[in-house]
Amino acid sequence: MITFNKPHLTGKETHYIYDAVKTGKLSGNGKYTKMCHDYFQNTFGFGKCLLTTSCTDALEMAAILLDIKEGDEVIMPSYTFVSTANAFVLRGAKIIFCDSRKDHPGIDEEKIEQLITSKTRVIVPVHYAGVACDMDKIMDLAAKYDLFVVEDAAQAIDSYYTGRDGIKRALGTIGHLAAFSFHETKNIISGEGGMLVVNDDRFKERSEIIWEKGTNRSAFFRGEVDKYGWVDIGSSFLPSEIIAAFLWAQLEELEEIQFRRIEIWNKYFNELQSWAEINKCHLPYIPTYGSNNAHMFYIVCKNGKQRKSLIDHLKKNNIHAVFHYLSLHKSDFYSKNCRDIILPNSDHFSNVLVRLPFFLALNNNDLENIIKNIKQTKFELI
Amino acid sequence: MITFNKPHLTGKETHYIYDAVKTGKLSGNGKYTKMCHDYFQNTFGFGKCLLTTSCTDALEMAAILLDIKEGDEVIMPSYTFVSTANAFVLRGAKIIFCDSRKDHPGIDEEKIEQLITSKTRVIVPVHYAGVACDMDKIMDLAAKYDLFVVEDAAQAIDSYYTGRDGIKRALGTIGHLAAFSFHETKNIISGEGGMLVVNDDRFKERSEIIWEKGTNRSAFFRGEVDKYGWVDIGSSFLPSEIIAAFLWAQLEELEEIQFRRIEIWNKYFNELQSWAEINKCHLPYIPTYGSNNAHMFYIVCKNGKQRKSLIDHLKKNNIHAVFHYLSLHKSDFYSKNCRDIILPNSDHFSNVLVRLPFFLALNNNDLENIIKNIKQTKFELI
Repeated sequence: MITFNKPHLTGKETHYIYDAVKTGKLSGNGKYTKMCHDYFQNTFGFGKCLLTTSCTDALEMAAILLDIKEGDEVIMPSYTFVSTANAFVLRGAKIIFCDSRKDHPGIDEEKIEQLITSKTRVIVPVHYAGVACDMDKIMDLAAKYDLFVVEDAAQAIDSYYTGRDGIKRALGTIGHLAAFSFHETKNIISGEGGMLVVNDDRFKERSEIIWEKGTNRSAFFRGEVDKYGWVDIGSSFLPSEIIAAFLWAQLEELEEIQFRRIEIWNKYFNELQSWAEINKCHLPYIPTYGSNNAHMFYIVCKNGKQRKSLIDHLKKNNIHAVFHYLSLHKSDFYSKNCRDIILPNSDHFSNVLVRLPFFLALNNNDLENIIKNIKQTKFELI
Repeated sequence: MITFNKPHLTGKETHYIYDAVKTGKLSGNGKYTKMCHDYFQNTFGFGKCLLTTSCTDALEMAAILLDIKEGDEVIMPSYTFVSTANAFVLRGAKIIFCDSRKDHPGIDEEKIEQLITSKTRVIVPVHYAGVACDMDKIMDLAAKYDLFVVEDAAQAIDSYYTGRDGIKRALGTIGHLAAFSFHETKNIISGEGGMLVVNDDRFKERSEIIWEKGTNRSAFFRGEVDKYGWVDIGSSFLPSEIIAAFLWAQLEELEEIQFRRIEIWNKYFNELQSWAEINKCHLPYIPTYGSNNAHMFYIVCKNGKQRKSLIDHLKKNNIHAVFHYLSLHKSDFYSKNCRDIILPNSDHFSNVLVRLPFFLALNNNDLENIIKNIKQTKFELI
């Protein structure tokens, strides 16, 4: 069986966990947490980094930091993970779903402005499959209407955007805030895990307080206050050193991991191109302003029937390919609480996108087997 | 230096983590999570158990499950950790702080009823130092006024309450919901970590949904629904299998851990009794309806000056003793948002309680050294 995902281990994870355990400091914000923060800040140019127990938690921190209140509106794509929305719903926000682009599941930058009202507070671009949204357009809108931008960069580590100024910037450095995931399905992992990036100076001090359960504990340990106590809302957003130590082992090998992922991605892309054309499917589109972090490889089938044939044929041949998000505007939760809206591109990707197995341990035999089976799939006449 | 705390390791933590890592299932709700859930349910008679990334998160789940809304009132002691309050504040609740008992930092059961209004929804007894609150009294009030009870059992694993029916029940089995902590300072640990216990059947189904980010993913994997999606609010409350594997190693040794902790506690208690009497201090009080889980050993000094002398003398002799909570009704956050209230017992414990070093690796030499130094402390005439 070729599974859809298999977490990659560098082999040093348990070594560093053992080291963390030995030091006797197991709760959050210890040596490995600080090493990870420094690494991210230095490697990608992120603002203040704070590891969290999940990307969901990082998004919740963002919603708290932005002081989201009952009735505030937050614009995001419907084709995204449930946490992108829930993090803001938990603070009372009304989610305004925007359609995907025609050529990509990411938010259609051209359709955002028409959704902005006097209640809009935040735009949340999701860098689907690690591919950049057109951030210049989004940041321009934010400036024009005085909004905040939270990059949902869950899938976007080591991916870049080149704006109109010609400068190539890491995703996660552009919005006021950004959230990353290190869930076991991501390029670098810690089982469950995430990170908030705070690029806007106005939020840096408070972010640390919210992270530490609403206390000024970090300032206390730096000797800036003489006792610490309850100063704000907040939660226990920081992960154990065990998780940070695991993540550290992955960061040490980021380059090697990315090198092999890109090889896998390119093999899929090159070998499926003409097949896709013949069968009227589409392979992932990467705009010229974006880079490829090889987070995922997907096929946009011609229709749902074609997707079903493909998934079924692969399954019969012990290959696990999967579809992805059900558009959130079609969910039970949204239907119960909000009026119907029509987002054809988002629906389209919900109905026809299929993700191929993608993990580091896939060898060339596996890949050829998968590609061969894709090509052998017989599509019924539709 | 004798530190205040040193996390205990059974030695098998990294072994089980390695096993979890090897299976390739690192995200939440895998084999070790299920083993921990079963253990807790079978050993202590808890209702449905759900591991969380912290006790804070378990309390937040409780607040979501109880549908806490703007203006709802929640009664809890002021002498508690900030998360007891913040978890409910995040949902819009107004916190009504109750004083501590005279003989114990736990909530004064006799002072709760006068705080109940038509807006009260929940009572949160905190089992301070793992010592039971008088749960019959609290559950009677809850029944009389149709309120919910959430046990903050952060410190109370393996501790019991014997009610008027003569039955000895584990703390965490009595309230509608209960929250435990496995933070590195607790009797059993996973670095950061916690657990929600759902005793009331009405909350069991929804608790799983909230735990899984507001989706019906668990029902999907049990084959009860044919696809899963967004059905409710929720968050990523579940910890990685790495954390669950660590916790499992601790659970295997719970009996041995508890045996030694009780030895340490008894040594402190027996050897300090007459000293405390002479110096007009108090040692921990355990009511007849409670049991002792040896979570903590504290001294209630005569006054703040005496406490300072004690902490200073110990520090000079390389022994780290610490005070505990600053009453939440005196915090910056509360003062900014609420009117002044007077809670003399809570203030008293904030001012005079000192916690002695307490961890498994304390040997009898360490203990005798600490006890000797306590007895040698010279108190200024006050």
